[in-house]
Amino acid sequence: MAILVVGSVAFDSIETPSGKVEKILGGAATHFALAASYFTDVRVIGVVGEDFAAEHEAVFERRGIDTDGIERAPGLSFHWTGEYSGSLNEAKTLGTDLNVFATFAPKIPEQYKDSEYLFLANIDPVLQSRVRAQMPNVKLVCGDTMNYWIADHRESLLKVLRELDVLLVNDGETRMLSGETNMVKAAAGVMSLGPKALVVKHGEYGATGFFSERAFAGKPSRPFRAPALPLAEVVDPTGAGDSFAGGFYGYIASQPELTPAVFRTAMFYGGVMGSFAVERFGTERLQAVTSEEINDRFNLFREISHLEGLSE
Amino acid sequence: MAILVVGSVAFDSIETPSGKVEKILGGAATHFALAASYFTDVRVIGVVGEDFAAEHEAVFERRGIDTDGIERAPGLSFHWTGEYSGSLNEAKTLGTDLNVFATFAPKIPEQYKDSEYLFLANIDPVLQSRVRAQMPNVKLVCGDTMNYWIADHRESLLKVLRELDVLLVNDGETRMLSGETNMVKAAAGVMSLGPKALVVKHGEYGATGFFSERAFAGKPSRPFRAPALPLAEVVDPTGAGDSFAGGFYGYIASQPELTPAVFRTAMFYGGVMGSFAVERFGTERLQAVTSEEINDRFNLFREISHLEGLSE
Repeated sequence: MAILVVGSVAFDSIETPSGKVEKILGGAATHFALAASYFTDVRVIGVVGEDFAAEHEAVFERRGIDTDGIERAPGLSFHWTGEYSGSLNEAKTLGTDLNVFATFAPKIPEQYKDSEYLFLANIDPVLQSRVRAQMPNVKLVCGDTMNYWIADHRESLLKVLRELDVLLVNDGETRMLSGETNMVKAAAGVMSLGPKALVVKHGEYGATGFFSERAFAGKPSRPFRAPALPLAEVVDPTGAGDSFAGGFYGYIASQPELTPAVFRTAMFYGGVMGSFAVERFGTERLQAVTSEEINDRFNLFREISHLEGLSE
Repeated sequence: MAILVVGSVAFDSIETPSGKVEKILGGAATHFALAASYFTDVRVIGVVGEDFAAEHEAVFERRGIDTDGIERAPGLSFHWTGEYSGSLNEAKTLGTDLNVFATFAPKIPEQYKDSEYLFLANIDPVLQSRVRAQMPNVKLVCGDTMNYWIADHRESLLKVLRELDVLLVNDGETRMLSGETNMVKAAAGVMSLGPKALVVKHGEYGATGFFSERAFAGKPSRPFRAPALPLAEVVDPTGAGDSFAGGFYGYIASQPELTPAVFRTAMFYGGVMGSFAVERFGTERLQAVTSEEINDRFNLFREISHLEGLSE
């Protein structure tokens, strides 16, 4: 089933201990769409400027991603500049040039309106709400946000949360949204704001899924822990969370029904796609990964976390 | 098979958001021994003062723990005072009164010398080495340490590490020991100092086992990730790491051979015993947990981390 994603299609200039790149293709919607494209059809809503060239368009085309919803506007594309150091867990933002994104008003092409799965990538919650409102019959809505919107745009964000089925955030964002330090209480607090389920991403420690009693009627609602792959080298963490979301949601959209087992498996695929993303700068690895590599790595994720996974 | 543990038997005064306790039974060897006693025979080497009364002795006796190796010395027992706040991830030490521990010279009773498993709890590495030297024929040696010894007693610690099979430490200690920020490289660095395998404890995120090529000859040496249980309330984190070690090593000692599968299962039991420990102050919960509760929680750990764990 098709996923509709709204979010940034952008250029990133990034410096990490592994090197430095200038204005490479990036953005939350880009990473998400590439990761999800290995599982299902993906349609993108976004805006780019005149610097978005045929070579960038081709990255989407080669993965069969529908870009009819990417609006071309006069000016430059959204451009993020950041650097990572030390344990690479946190980016230091050096510049955020919104450019054409500053006046972005998402419009959904008619042929996208039958999309059953909606992903609201990390953008202004006002825009997330506008997209949500144009997709009243969608089957499942999943979204992301960040500390900036939690701190300074709380009211608009709360409106989005009320209309979300699944929220994906990190530990700090979960605590910030709920005001609770204990993660179980924080997760319950966030879910009381709307989402039926919550995926908390712990970076190198994997992710935990939390489920409200509304998530799976009559099913057990225990949390679930999915691992991350211990990696000897992280070249560039940019887009890891969006790639996680793409693998997670892409797998869900590829299945006939969202069961607890599908949700858990989706969390593993999220980790798998996140682990590929960080192996190269930008979207390089996600452009060229193979289905066989995805299957192998999924099996590796099982092996490193399951008591029976080891072939002896 | 019997485990011999050397470490502190002490009193703790602790304040957490859940309350405050004064001079309750604690110490690394105490938490370790109680946790391990559910799996195998345990013998303790330590020293206590005149404040160690019959009621404290009875805590060990009720769990069938051999205390003949606990020396009684004039004066007071080791007394630690600390507090936790916020996310309870780190203790703030308010006082460390070594008392009788200051002049502790571990002596191993003759009848302990056939112990096949040795655990060197977190004490001065000079003492760890002395105990190790008195147990030349032991089958497996596992140990713990902390930032204080890593920073200020590195030479003595390096001597201990060369004689260890398995080291249990946390993320910060692993990075500090190796000088590497990347966890895979840090683990490899620590294992190059001696231990064949390393268990890195991540607190609420579980633990990762790393294996050198010397750990299991001819077997795969992939890392392994064991979960921690998301808990809505942590009453007192004191001794969680030692309880993890007790469950981990107790399970290993209960098995005929240390295979990769046994190591992995042991990491789950470590998490299980750690999760019980923090439910009450001090050793209260570890004194009274039942085998059925341990089995149930082990199954819960599988359920929250295994894709097939869910009964639907």
